[in-house]
Amino acid sequence: MQSKFFHEKLLKAMHRGESVPFFESRTWSHPEVPEDLARLRREAPLVHCITNGVVTNFTANVLLALGASPAMVETIEEVADFVRIAQVLLINVGTITTRDAEAMFEAAAAARETDTPWVLDPVAFGALEFRSRIVRELIAFRPAVIRGNASEILALGGETGGAKGVDATVSSTEAVQAAVALAAGSGAVVALSGEIDYITDGSSVIPVPGGHEMMTKVTGMGCTLGALIAALLPVTGSAFRAATAASAIYAEAGERAGRDARGTGSFAVSFLDQLSTIGTEAAP
Amino acid sequence: MQSKFFHEKLLKAMHRGESVPFFESRTWSHPEVPEDLARLRREAPLVHCITNGVVTNFTANVLLALGASPAMVETIEEVADFVRIAQVLLINVGTITTRDAEAMFEAAAAARETDTPWVLDPVAFGALEFRSRIVRELIAFRPAVIRGNASEILALGGETGGAKGVDATVSSTEAVQAAVALAAGSGAVVALSGEIDYITDGSSVIPVPGGHEMMTKVTGMGCTLGALIAALLPVTGSAFRAATAASAIYAEAGERAGRDARGTGSFAVSFLDQLSTIGTEAAP
Amino acid sequence: MQSKFFHEKLLKAMHRGESVPFFESRTWSHPEVPEDLARLRREAPLVHCITNGVVTNFTANVLLALGASPAMVETIEEVADFVRIAQVLLINVGTITTRDAEAMFEAAAAARETDTPWVLDPVAFGALEFRSRIVRELIAFRPAVIRGNASEILALGGETGGAKGVDATVSSTEAVQAAVALAAGSGAVVALSGEIDYITDGSSVIPVPGGHEMMTKVTGMGCTLGALIAALLPVTGSAFRAATAASAIYAEAGERAGRDARGTGSFAVSFLDQLSTIGTEAAP
Repeated sequence: MQSKFFHEKLLKAMHRGESVPFFESRTWSHPEVPEDLARLRREAPLVHCITNGVVTNFTANVLLALGASPAMVETIEEVADFVRIAQVLLINVGTITTRDAEAMFEAAAAARETDTPWVLDPVAFGALEFRSRIVRELIAFRPAVIRGNASEILALGGETGGAKGVDATVSSTEAVQAAVALAAGSGAVVALSGEIDYITDGSSVIPVPGGHEMMTKVTGMGCTLGALIAALLPVTGSAFRAATAASAIYAEAGERAGRDARGTGSFAVSFLDQLSTIGTEAAP
Repeated sequence: MQSKFFHEKLLKAMHRGESVPFFESRTWSHPEVPEDLARLRREAPLVHCITNGVVTNFTANVLLALGASPAMVETIEEVADFVRIAQVLLINVGTITTRDAEAMFEAAAAARETDTPWVLDPVAFGALEFRSRIVRELIAFRPAVIRGNASEILALGGETGGAKGVDATVSSTEAVQAAVALAAGSGAVVALSGEIDYITDGSSVIPVPGGHEMMTKVTGMGCTLGALIAALLPVTGSAFRAATAASAIYAEAGERAGRDARGTGSFAVSFLDQLSTIGTEAAP
Repeated sequence: MQSKFFHEKLLKAMHRGESVPFFESRTWSHPEVPEDLARLRREAPLVHCITNGVVTNFTANVLLALGASPAMVETIEEVADFVRIAQVLLINVGTITTRDAEAMFEAAAAARETDTPWVLDPVAFGALEFRSRIVRELIAFRPAVIRGNASEILALGGETGGAKGVDATVSSTEAVQAAVALAAGSGAVVALSGEIDYITDGSSVIPVPGGHEMMTKVTGMGCTLGALIAALLPVTGSAFRAATAASAIYAEAGERAGRDARGTGSFAVSFLDQLSTIGTEAAP
């Protein structure tokens, strides 16, 4: 358990007066989150998604529920044009092929050229050679945020995460140091997902606890969190704030959904219900 | 607001005794719709879907709920064979690639050759050059119905719709004239989706109001409406009737689903529930 | 109706003391099923899925609900590597392309080489020439289980099933003899799905009744049953036991889901809820 260490580090950062957002034990306590949510619904940013085939439908529904405008434009003939239209780009390598990789490089290059912020989700990095090489090359195009689970972040941060597939086999707390190293080395904010989410820019680390264990039993919870981070990038103008707000929203919606779910099916439905109403309720 | 103009036009058409189906303010008032629904469940037409990856699952579930028999056969090696087996074809360009386009041309040519009716859904036409060119070429294969939102129909009808992605940025009422022009020019019935749906064959225009605002927050509502129009084509034998009945069914199911939905997740579930029971209830 | 014949055959097999699992009229009566379910949750096998685009999301959610660890790794650059990591492989040809077929052959060859058990789902075999040829070639790589509906199994067993698409047009009972012939000829256990599921290794036949008619109105019920059979293969170590347990679990979960479903949408949600809780309840 490294949480004590990081909690201390966090307290030190706060003592130095660093103006990073902070969520104490309860995710909803941060006053900026409702503000970010309201702006997301008002501005409805167009989110260009190049994501894996397993989660395209769920990703679109998550973004629509939160008021964003998703568009899945994935073919090499169109991605560069669409980067110029959209406010932000998501690249998720979950079911990547050689042809997808070409489109991703094209999109990432266009994003770099047009200063369009983008999020990289390195699904199963470290478990498979082919995608790992592509992810390394994509990072050179400087994503604003890299979102991954502990296995992926450990492998990206230079350690072996014991990845056996797409699911993390170690706890997020064990991967915080790798996340800090990855953020420092890549220049991206790293959003490390797990029982506790950790957001880091390489100097500060923000833990975001909360959520519900059923989130690990519904496919695409991590992938769609990456999409929400993307949606919040143009709205907040800050990679750190977008990533922390996204984790806080997911933690809260997950807890709410867990209250009346009778299993993983109704949990996923209720999770979308929560996302579509969260932040629109009157303040208590 | 052009609705007054179109309402007058509609009344004039009716005065001329044109035998187009008509839905007054309440979609369910048209007596042919329950009849079409019953025939759909009885005949279970095989609907050949070449659609986008975001909505394949939802499309299949919508068609199954209504008693049709969906089949997603999308590869160039099989589409021409399958057009010969299926009763009707749907082509939706939502996530089109060059290879998909080849399969679509093959399928559309086979449909033309075998007199199989087909529906074209020109997702994001006008926003992206690549797909816009393909859609123009597909229209030459004479779809029975073109279904789109206001941005797409405006762009297809010759005006710029200010499309920013896959979502319409103008109201359907503003695109009715473009829909009429497109129908007259292409020979297809045009089904224009929005807060009010409009169906036109180039001379008459039928408004179908109703539905629920959450329909804009669930991905694939427009795409699956196109699939339902396709399913109704062989059943009704009329492109106009199929498109109006489909819009009426969607409007009614959307209103019913909206009554007990707690958010967009449960709305989508309830929408499928409504589709799977609509028209099977005893007449009031 | 051949059920009497097969019931007699089954009784004879039992009289010979053959140790095949057996489900009488009620699927849940077999004591090994709860045991297999518990082991599935405990061991969480990594299931390598190469399946069709319509059902990837549902397949992942079904496997996660039951405690397995799904991974959709489908590209030719990665499949052979991933077969070496995963415990079991599923190949479903539902939306197959030439490029997919190459990846499937690569995966099947790697499975053979590494003695990794695998399940073949020959969606729409017999209806389309292209996939039928590929399925024949895949069978040469010796799947542990072939799962299909009556039309597919009839066609594979040498008879014409009158397949019109992906849905069976004949009852499963009419295809039992073809299933037995296919199992005897291929060396695979054949899992024949329908109103009654039949599992056969070419000598014995196990009928698994139960389920709910709404299972035919939700896409992917057959495909995900194939995925569950795959997940149970490494857990049970027996193709016969895996296939019968999977059918029993589906029959039971379907019946439970049917009790409170208001239509096909809530049925699918409740089905996932049932899968995520089945076998974890205290014994009565």
